Amino acid sequence: MIAAVNLDMTFAALADPTRRAILARLAKGEATVTELAAPFKMTQPAISQHLKALEDAGLVVSRVDGTKRPRRLAKAGIEAMDQWLAMLRKALEKNYNRLDEVLASMGEPKTKRGEKR
Amino acid sequence: MIAAVNLDMTFAALADPTRRAILARLAKGEATVTELAAPFKMTQPAISQHLKALEDAGLVVSRVDGTKRPRRLAKAGIEAMDQWLAMLRKALEKNYNRLDEVLASMGEPKTKRGEKR
Repeated sequence: MIAAVNLDMTFAALADPTRRAILARLAKGEATVTELAAPFKMTQPAISQHLKALEDAGLVVSRVDGTKRPRRLAKAGIEAMDQWLAMLRKALEKNYNRLDEVLASMGEPKTKRGEKR
Repeated sequence: MIAAVNLDMTFAALADPTRRAILARLAKGEATVTELAAPFKMTQPAISQHLKALEDAGLVVSRVDGTKRPRRLAKAGIEAMDQWLAMLRKALEKNYNRLDEVLASMGEPKTKRGEKR
């Protein structure tokens, strides 16, 4: 069961370079707290705290594997952010297409775009 | 000239529902502080403060139009976030493709993937 994603928490979780680095590491495959702590030269409790923020934000999930609890990226949080950003991305593209049209009409008043003079 | 985008500030700026709503409004076209303040039932100084956070984060820019300073979406911050998130998006797709392969091999134990029976 996936809880509704809270975009406030999701974006806040990403506003930290260590948490972004943890996600970048998990993008290469799942990892345990021990495996995550090593490259960051941080204590396991410090890493666990960052992981909790990422889990609460819907960006990371864990599974049980014997005595280990490997973490991996969670689809819900990443997709929720992605959908939200898609709206801004589309708006930018639209604005730039409009700008292209304006520039084209200013720069080449007698010819159509792509035409040879 | 575009300043280097600070992803800490960019993601932190999005961790607020009013700031996301301002961006959603600007996605429809540029707007002045007065125009932005109206639907939010907020004072202009409150909106200006949110706009400053969005400008510092590289998500909004302004231009001078007589006595007005209309705001619009800024490409730099949005693209920087988008590129960063693309890395997570690709990792998720790869994981799901891998899961598809595992499920396919479980369902068809006697044949290799793609082989005709």
